[in-house]
Amino acid sequence: MTPAPEALPLFVDGSRLIADLEHLGRFGVNSEGGIDRASFSPADGQAREWLTGRCEEAGLRVEVDGIGNMLVSSPESESESGIAGLAPVWTGSHIDAVPNGGRFDGPVGVLASLECLRRLHEERVPLRRPVRVIVYADEEGNYAHLLGSSAISRGIAMEDLARIVGRDGDRFSDTFAAAGGDLAAAARVRWRPGSVHASVELHIEQGPVLEQRGVQIGVVTGIVAIGGGTVRFLGRADHAGTTPMHGRKDAAVAAAEFILALPDIAADAGDTAVVTTGIIRAEPGGSNVIAGAAEVVVDFRDPSLDTATMLESHITAAASDVARRRGLEVSVQWEEIVPGARMDDGVRSAITATADSLGFSAMDIPSGAGHDSQNMSTLGPTGMIFVPSVGGRSHSPAERTAAPDTVRGANVLLGTLIRLATREERYENGGTPA
Amino acid sequence: MTPAPEALPLFVDGSRLIADLEHLGRFGVNSEGGIDRASFSPADGQAREWLTGRCEEAGLRVEVDGIGNMLVSSPESESESGIAGLAPVWTGSHIDAVPNGGRFDGPVGVLASLECLRRLHEERVPLRRPVRVIVYADEEGNYAHLLGSSAISRGIAMEDLARIVGRDGDRFSDTFAAAGGDLAAAARVRWRPGSVHASVELHIEQGPVLEQRGVQIGVVTGIVAIGGGTVRFLGRADHAGTTPMHGRKDAAVAAAEFILALPDIAADAGDTAVVTTGIIRAEPGGSNVIAGAAEVVVDFRDPSLDTATMLESHITAAASDVARRRGLEVSVQWEEIVPGARMDDGVRSAITATADSLGFSAMDIPSGAGHDSQNMSTLGPTGMIFVPSVGGRSHSPAERTAAPDTVRGANVLLGTLIRLATREERYENGGTPA
Repeated sequence: MTPAPEALPLFVDGSRLIADLEHLGRFGVNSEGGIDRASFSPADGQAREWLTGRCEEAGLRVEVDGIGNMLVSSPESESESGIAGLAPVWTGSHIDAVPNGGRFDGPVGVLASLECLRRLHEERVPLRRPVRVIVYADEEGNYAHLLGSSAISRGIAMEDLARIVGRDGDRFSDTFAAAGGDLAAAARVRWRPGSVHASVELHIEQGPVLEQRGVQIGVVTGIVAIGGGTVRFLGRADHAGTTPMHGRKDAAVAAAEFILALPDIAADAGDTAVVTTGIIRAEPGGSNVIAGAAEVVVDFRDPSLDTATMLESHITAAASDVARRRGLEVSVQWEEIVPGARMDDGVRSAITATADSLGFSAMDIPSGAGHDSQNMSTLGPTGMIFVPSVGGRSHSPAERTAAPDTVRGANVLLGTLIRLATREERYENGGTPA
Repeated sequence: MTPAPEALPLFVDGSRLIADLEHLGRFGVNSEGGIDRASFSPADGQAREWLTGRCEEAGLRVEVDGIGNMLVSSPESESESGIAGLAPVWTGSHIDAVPNGGRFDGPVGVLASLECLRRLHEERVPLRRPVRVIVYADEEGNYAHLLGSSAISRGIAMEDLARIVGRDGDRFSDTFAAAGGDLAAAARVRWRPGSVHASVELHIEQGPVLEQRGVQIGVVTGIVAIGGGTVRFLGRADHAGTTPMHGRKDAAVAAAEFILALPDIAADAGDTAVVTTGIIRAEPGGSNVIAGAAEVVVDFRDPSLDTATMLESHITAAASDVARRRGLEVSVQWEEIVPGARMDDGVRSAITATADSLGFSAMDIPSGAGHDSQNMSTLGPTGMIFVPSVGGRSHSPAERTAAPDTVRGANVLLGTLIRLATREERYENGGTPA
């Protein structure tokens, strides 16, 4: 019954997939040509409605859980194969976008997953495990980072949900209710151990590595540990004209020296470490006033939690060093480092073997961005497939993945799902199937 | 009739001056203990009303010109001395404040001037020139830098006045009308050549030099040339997690390198040059997005226009250099350099001689801040007297000048006014009286 891995008989319908991707890209278009489609927004509602229609046209069933994750299955195939009660192989991604975001970050994975399930359903491929699609709610964290998968993996208490405020200052409870949600039902979402046989997510790389190396498929090794926080230098606000250079306590200059030290700190920590300062504020912020305070928001990441922890301490030391030498004060507020996740060796092997059998070039690559797969990895063996991003652009209207790359990724996903759903072994997180 | 310079018979009433200063400091107090008293605001109106009352109690006459400058005279003394038609010696400063400003920047000069005129009037000191007090409107430029004295020295056209918008976004024409002003009358203000026999302004230093050197009186040599503008680095906004350090076009890091180069550029230009970056903005301004653009507002000053011009070109070169080495673009928008003004040698001599005769220590000092005296210097021989600022603090609730320093400054002003109003020579700007 099990198709041999070297004889994958099935391919996705690439034209149908690309047409779906183009259609989904029409929901939430703004005046800059970017996508504004936060979860639970009207644009998100329209996209969900269209997506539900696409699933139902294909004979698939759509359920929405308490927090707004969409779960898509083929009850017909599952019952025909007699596997309806078994833990599924989950595949999916998200359709929400950052403000003024792109059309590929999320949708590529969702629509490729739908296309895979559609093909499995159409061909009645005999599986030993259900394959189901999941569309995670609020991956981009308008309300909370990886909201939907966080609820799945560890639950979110009612009182925590009630406190959430969105980027635009709206209360989650209000917007969620307006979108038809029920806070009590949201607080009940949490999957029991054993409910995930395996999990695979296809996603755009959002970086330049695959394109630069001319590689078609990225086999994600892990999702980086992410740290960050705010470094605030306190100097003295004085008149820009009447205060000699000597003796100033200029917080802007101190912040500049600190920012300039960070690329070296990243380089010393290794090729995979990144440190970014995307927000800088000088106070009081007058052209003729020396900055009395300067705040720098720092983001640092590395696949290794140890390296991320070391980055945090080196960055703290650099801030203290600059402040001490310049006679300023500094305060550093770090958030807790999110440890990231290793991807499962067995799932990685299945992805690599599929790419090989299809003749696609593949390489191991860490994910520098957070993904719902890091939550799924706490419930079962999880892996991710990356496809190239043109110019490495992402979170921008310029975000793009070429159609052939999208279709290649979808075919690797399909082959991987078949491998995972037909093998009998239960994958263990971090273990290799026999 | 002329009192000999070494035998100054007259002193100010220090207690009355300090009491006036404390009283004026009650108008516009905010919750932080600072002063919010922009020109033409309700707080400014209350302060003017009180000040007018103080003048009238002393038997002085107050007129308000079309742009809102207050002009105070002693018609009685002038007619008794038979000097009513002659060009006066003007002395004064301003009572408006920067947002959350202090109680001394402006008021010290206004109230010391009033005290001087009051004493001259009370004692019927025989003068050969009228001494008159001027309270300049909107020195701090809520609507336009040195608004009142700019109108006096060169006039401001109706259409330019109509275009002015205040710091808080209010139209000048609306606020000015609400304060009783008439735009057509404002546009008519402009003094004819010969209307200023001489001009003297007492002001707090707003810097630390006098205090650090333990000197009581600063004799201002000139007001610095002021240049500035915006330097904008254009890089590429990319994902902070997925874009390796190598190959980033991080505008924040470029701006940091640029800012850090500026203190050296100032030092190379000499002790008197200052360069300040009080405003920094990274765009799009997300913690997980590499800055695609970074804007730095630069302010540079030096007593010499040549040095200021050189600073501008060195700062431009530094920006281009950073951008070129990092593969970014940069655009530089400089405003026209305000050339500053030399103070008149004759007025400076009168100030120095008075300080000497009173036994006060004095030193020459440039003014790093702009003052109405730079406009007055285009109409007649002009000088400024500085008194120490505690800790060099200014434009802040912490701004303070000790009472004895204020009284010393007022006595130097009084002696200087007597010298200027009793000598017969007509001072030429930049020339030395015989």
